[in-house]
Amino acid sequence: MSVLVGVIMGSTSDWETMKHACDMLDELGVAYEKKVVSAHRTPDLMFDYAASAAGRGLKVIIAGAGGAAHLPGMVAAKTELPVIGVPVKTSTLNGLDSLLSIVQMPGGIPVATVAIGHAGATNAGLLAAQIIGAFAPEVQSKVRERRERTRQTVIESSVLE
Amino acid sequence: MSVLVGVIMGSTSDWETMKHACDMLDELGVAYEKKVVSAHRTPDLMFDYAASAAGRGLKVIIAGAGGAAHLPGMVAAKTELPVIGVPVKTSTLNGLDSLLSIVQMPGGIPVATVAIGHAGATNAGLLAAQIIGAFAPEVQSKVRERRERTRQTVIESSVLE
Amino acid sequence: MSVLVGVIMGSTSDWETMKHACDMLDELGVAYEKKVVSAHRTPDLMFDYAASAAGRGLKVIIAGAGGAAHLPGMVAAKTELPVIGVPVKTSTLNGLDSLLSIVQMPGGIPVATVAIGHAGATNAGLLAAQIIGAFAPEVQSKVRERRERTRQTVIESSVLE
Amino acid sequence: MSVLVGVIMGSTSDWETMKHACDMLDELGVAYEKKVVSAHRTPDLMFDYAASAAGRGLKVIIAGAGGAAHLPGMVAAKTELPVIGVPVKTSTLNGLDSLLSIVQMPGGIPVATVAIGHAGATNAGLLAAQIIGAFAPEVQSKVRERRERTRQTVIESSVLE
Amino acid sequence: MSVLVGVIMGSTSDWETMKHACDMLDELGVAYEKKVVSAHRTPDLMFDYAASAAGRGLKVIIAGAGGAAHLPGMVAAKTELPVIGVPVKTSTLNGLDSLLSIVQMPGGIPVATVAIGHAGATNAGLLAAQIIGAFAPEVQSKVRERRERTRQTVIESSVLE
Amino acid sequence: MSVLVGVIMGSTSDWETMKHACDMLDELGVAYEKKVVSAHRTPDLMFDYAASAAGRGLKVIIAGAGGAAHLPGMVAAKTELPVIGVPVKTSTLNGLDSLLSIVQMPGGIPVATVAIGHAGATNAGLLAAQIIGAFAPEVQSKVRERRERTRQTVIESSVLE
Amino acid sequence: MSVLVGVIMGSTSDWETMKHACDMLDELGVAYEKKVVSAHRTPDLMFDYAASAAGRGLKVIIAGAGGAAHLPGMVAAKTELPVIGVPVKTSTLNGLDSLLSIVQMPGGIPVATVAIGHAGATNAGLLAAQIIGAFAPEVQSKVRERRERTRQTVIESSVLE
Amino acid sequence: MSVLVGVIMGSTSDWETMKHACDMLDELGVAYEKKVVSAHRTPDLMFDYAASAAGRGLKVIIAGAGGAAHLPGMVAAKTELPVIGVPVKTSTLNGLDSLLSIVQMPGGIPVATVAIGHAGATNAGLLAAQIIGAFAPEVQSKVRERRERTRQTVIESSVLE
Repeated sequence: MSVLVGVIMGSTSDWETMKHACDMLDELGVAYEKKVVSAHRTPDLMFDYAASAAGRGLKVIIAGAGGAAHLPGMVAAKTELPVIGVPVKTSTLNGLDSLLSIVQMPGGIPVATVAIGHAGATNAGLLAAQIIGAFAPEVQSKVRERRERTRQTVIESSVLE
Repeated sequence: MSVLVGVIMGSTSDWETMKHACDMLDELGVAYEKKVVSAHRTPDLMFDYAASAAGRGLKVIIAGAGGAAHLPGMVAAKTELPVIGVPVKTSTLNGLDSLLSIVQMPGGIPVATVAIGHAGATNAGLLAAQIIGAFAPEVQSKVRERRERTRQTVIESSVLE
Repeated sequence: MSVLVGVIMGSTSDWETMKHACDMLDELGVAYEKKVVSAHRTPDLMFDYAASAAGRGLKVIIAGAGGAAHLPGMVAAKTELPVIGVPVKTSTLNGLDSLLSIVQMPGGIPVATVAIGHAGATNAGLLAAQIIGAFAPEVQSKVRERRERTRQTVIESSVLE
Repeated sequence: MSVLVGVIMGSTSDWETMKHACDMLDELGVAYEKKVVSAHRTPDLMFDYAASAAGRGLKVIIAGAGGAAHLPGMVAAKTELPVIGVPVKTSTLNGLDSLLSIVQMPGGIPVATVAIGHAGATNAGLLAAQIIGAFAPEVQSKVRERRERTRQTVIESSVLE
Repeated sequence: MSVLVGVIMGSTSDWETMKHACDMLDELGVAYEKKVVSAHRTPDLMFDYAASAAGRGLKVIIAGAGGAAHLPGMVAAKTELPVIGVPVKTSTLNGLDSLLSIVQMPGGIPVATVAIGHAGATNAGLLAAQIIGAFAPEVQSKVRERRERTRQTVIESSVLE
Repeated sequence: MSVLVGVIMGSTSDWETMKHACDMLDELGVAYEKKVVSAHRTPDLMFDYAASAAGRGLKVIIAGAGGAAHLPGMVAAKTELPVIGVPVKTSTLNGLDSLLSIVQMPGGIPVATVAIGHAGATNAGLLAAQIIGAFAPEVQSKVRERRERTRQTVIESSVLE
Repeated sequence: MSVLVGVIMGSTSDWETMKHACDMLDELGVAYEKKVVSAHRTPDLMFDYAASAAGRGLKVIIAGAGGAAHLPGMVAAKTELPVIGVPVKTSTLNGLDSLLSIVQMPGGIPVATVAIGHAGATNAGLLAAQIIGAFAPEVQSKVRERRERTRQTVIESSVLE
Repeated sequence: MSVLVGVIMGSTSDWETMKHACDMLDELGVAYEKKVVSAHRTPDLMFDYAASAAGRGLKVIIAGAGGAAHLPGMVAAKTELPVIGVPVKTSTLNGLDSLLSIVQMPGGIPVATVAIGHAGATNAGLLAAQIIGAFAPEVQSKVRERRERTRQTVIESSVLE
C-alpha cells in the first residue's frame, strides 16, 4: 500500500503526543510517513512539504503543534488536501492556546481540529482512516471492526468491581 | 452527481449559520442534502440518520449545534464516515461551550471540528469538498480554482485606500 | 428496598470519581445499580438503558463523563426521569469542558448538573437521595440526620489548633 | 393540586429569566408559588423561606441568581428538599460567574444546576416536573406528552426552506 | 489589646491557606480570633457569628472559602463591618471559581476581595491591619515599618547571583 | 466633615463607572474628593497623590481602572491607607483583564477588590463607608439604615406581577 | 525620510483596527508602507514580503490579524527584524483567540504582542516609533513630546464635572 | 560593548524564568545588566531605574513579573525606550493573570509582550537583540546565524526514531 498520510509535528517534543496518531494508523493498516517540520524554524521546508504532498500521493496530512500553533493552518494554506490539526498540551495554558490557534481558522482555509493531547492524536489517526475509508472499503472495514472490538471491551468491563 | 454530503443541524435556528456550509458546497458543485436532526429532541431519528448515511452513499456528514452540542459526537458514534462538527455561537458563552462540547471527544470517536460560527460553517463545506477532492480530481480542481480566485482577490485588495 | 437509582459512567476510568456517588447512596441506604455505559462507544446500549430505566422502577439516573461529555444529556433525551450529570475532571482542561458539555443543555432536556470531580459525585448521590426523600420520609430523615452529623463535626472542629 | 414548587430569585430583574421556569410549570400543570428572596439583602427571610419549605408541602425549590450567586446554595443549606439553581446571565461575565458560583458546591450540599439564562430557566421548570413526575404518574405523562409534541415539531420543521 | 479581627474559614482544610492571614496579624500585633464557620454546613452559626461581630468589638472580618465560596458574601450580608474575602485555591478550577463567587457581589453588599491562595491570605491580614491603622496610628506605624523592612530586603537581594 | 475618601480613576472615560462610588458616598454623607490620575500617563502625579493621601487626612482611597489596570496596585504601593480597586469593564475582555490585574496582587501590597463595573463602583463607595463606619458610629448607622431600607424594598417588591 | 515600518494585515476588514497604527506613525512622522497580506490566502506573498523587508530598509514590521492569527508569527519566522503583532478583536471570542495565537510563540521566534483591538494598534505604531527612537534621537524626541502633551491633557481633564 | 539591555524582574523568584533572557543575550553577545526591581515593594527605585535608563545608554528594557504584573507597564510609563514584558507563570492561574496584566495596556504606553514563562523569557532576549540588530548589523548577523543553526537542528532531528 502506498503512503497515504503524512504525520508532521513542530518539534521532537511533540512526538510523545503524536505517536498515538501513528499507533492508530499502524493498527488500521494505513501507510504513513512521519517527520518534524517546524512552521517557525523551518518555514520553507514546511511550504515545500505541504505543496508537494498531493503530488506525492498523500490523501491526508496530520499536523500537531503547541502554543501559538501555526503548523496545521499554514500547511493547510499550501495544500488542497484535508489537514487534521492536533493541539498539543502546553505547560502553561494546558493546550487551550494550541486549540484556539488551530481551530479558529478564517473562512477559506479549514483545519479539521481534534481534541487536545493524546486522545486528540489517537483520533487524528482514526479520522484520517475514516476519510480514506469513505473511499476505500477495506479501510472502512477495519474502522468498523475496531469499533466493534471497542464496543465489546466496554460491555465486558461494564460490570464494576 | 449523487448526494455525497449530509448537512444536519440541531435546530432551525442553526440554519443561519449552517447555510454557509451549503453555500460553499453549492459553489464547489458538491451535491448535498440538508435536514434538522436534534440529538436531544429526536434521538432515534438522529441514530437512524447516522447509521444509514454510509449505505445511502454519503461520504461526509457536517453537523452543527450549539451549547451542550452533542449532535456531531453522537452522529460520529453511529457512523464510520468522517463527521465535521460546526460549533454554533451561543448567546451566553459565545460558542466556547459549543466548541469544547464538540472538539474534546474521547479517543475512539473523532469529530473534525472547525471554527465557531459562520467562518466555521463555510470551512465545513470546504473541508468536505477537500476530503472528497482527495479522491475526486474534478472536485479538487474546483477547490484549487477557488483558492486561486481568493488569492487574486486579496492581491487586488491589498493596496489600502 | 428496590433499586431506585442508576449510576452510570462513560468509562471504567470514571469509577474513581463516581464511586463517591455510590458511597453516599450506601451511607443513606438508597439501593442502586452501577454500570459502565459509553455514549460514544456503546450508543445503542446507552439508549436501551435510558429508555428502560423508568419501566424498571428507577427514579433517578446519575451519569458521569469527562471531556465532550455527552452521556448525561443523551440519557436525559431518552428518559423522563430526572438525570444528574457529574462532570469528571480532565487532564487537559480540568473538567471545564466536561462541565460546559453537561450543563449547557438546550431548553427541553434538562440535566441536573453538580460540581466537577469528587465533590460533585458525592453530591450527586446526595441529590438523588434528596429527590427520593421528598417523597419518601424515611430517606429524607436519613438526609436530615446526615446533615446534623456534619454540622456537629464542623462545630467540633471549629476551634483551630 | 397543592403548591409543590417554590420559584425564587434574588431580584426583580431576574424575573425576565425566571418567568420561563414558571411558564413551563404552567404548561405541565404543576402548581407553584413565586417570590423575590435575596440572599444578600434579605438573608433572614431567605433562611425562613428555606427552612419552612418542606413543612409547607413543597417538593422542589427553583432558585435563580446572577453574579456571586449565593441564593441557590444557601437555600440548599437550609432545606433537605432538592434545590435547582438557575445561573442568570450577567452583563460583565455573561453568567460564567453565576454558573461557577452555583454549580461548584462543596460535598454535602448539592445544587442541581441548569444552563445559563432562559434555556436554563425553562429546563428548571421541566426538571422540577420530572422530579415530581418520578413519583406522580400524571405529571410524568405530561412530560412525556410534551416531549412527543416537541419531537413532532422538530420533525415537521426538519425540511429546510 | 482587645480582639479586633475575626478570621473564619469554611473548612479545616482552608487553614493551610488562612494561617497566612493570622501570621500577618501576629507580625503586626493585631489581636484576632479564628474559627471554622461553614456557610453551607453551619448556616445558623454563620449568621450568629456575623450578626454579633460588631457588638463583640470586632472591626474587620476575614473570611476564606473555596469553590462556590459563599461564606464571605453571606457574612457580609449579616454585618455592617468590612468583610475581606480570601478565595481559596481549588483542585479543579485553581480558585477561579472561588474568586468569581466572592468578588462578583451585587450592588449593596461589598466584599473586599484579595488574591487567590496564600498571597491573598497574607494580604487579607495586612489589609485588615491597614484598615485598623487608618484609625490607630500605632498599627499604621507597624505597617509602615514592615514596608520599610520589605523594601530593604528587596534592595539587598536586588543583585542577582 | 473633612474629606475622608479619595476617588481616583485612570481616565475620564472611567467616570461613567466611578460616579456610582461617589453617588453612594453622597448618599451616606461621607465627604470625598475625586480626580483623574493616570498610572501610565501621569505616574509622578499618581505617586504624589498616593504618598500625600494619609497626611491630608484621607482614610480610604478608591481607585478605578480598566485593562492592564495598574492604578489601584501602584497607589497601594505608595500609601499605608486601605485601597479599594474597581475593575472597569473593557470592550474586549469585559473586564476580566481589569479584575485579574487588580486582584492578583503579590503578598505585601493588598488591594481590596470589588466587582467589575457599576455594581463594583457602588460597592466601593459602600465599602469605604463600612471601613470608616467601623470607627465612626454615625457612619455605621447610616450604613445600617440603608440596609434596612434596601431590605424593605426587596420585601415590598417580592410579590411578582 | 525612507520607509522604516511595514504595516500589514490579514484582511481588508482589519483596516478599521490597523489604521490606528498608521495614524500614530503619521503623528510621529515615521514613514511607513501598508498592505493587505494574508498568511492563509497569500502565503507565498507573505513569505516574499517578510524575506525582503530588511533588504528594503524596513526596521520594524507591524502585523495585525484575528482568530487563528498566524500572520505575525509567520512573518517573524521569515525575517530578523522585530515584528509587532496586533490581535484583532473577533466576533466570537473577542480577540482572546487572536491574542493567544500571536503571543504564545515558541522559544526562537518572538513576536512583540500588544493589546487586543484599537488600543493595541495605536500602541503598535507607538512601539515601532520607540524602537526606532532608541537609535534616532529626533524620533525619540517626538515620542517624548507626545507623552508630555498626553500628560498635560490628563492633568487638564483631571477635575471631574 | 556598552550595556544596551536592562533585565529586571519583580522578585528573586522570577530569576528562574528570567535567566533564560540573559542566556540568550549572552549567546548573542549583547551586553546587559540585571537587577531585582519591584513595582510594589520598591516603587521609587523602579521609577528611578526607568527614568535614568535611556540616559545611561540602554536601548531596551526587559521586565518580567507575575500575577498582577505591573512592573513592565509602569517602567514603560517612565521611559521612552521600548519595554519588553515577560509574563511569569503563576501557581494559581498559570500566568494568564500575568499575561493580561502586561499585554492589555491602554493606548499611549505600549509593552512588547512575549509568551508566558521560559519560552517567553528566551524570546525576550532574542527580541531585544532583533531590535538592536535592526540598527547594528553585527548583532543582526548573530541573530541570523542562530536561526540558521536552529534550522539545521530541526532538519537533523526531523527523522523520528
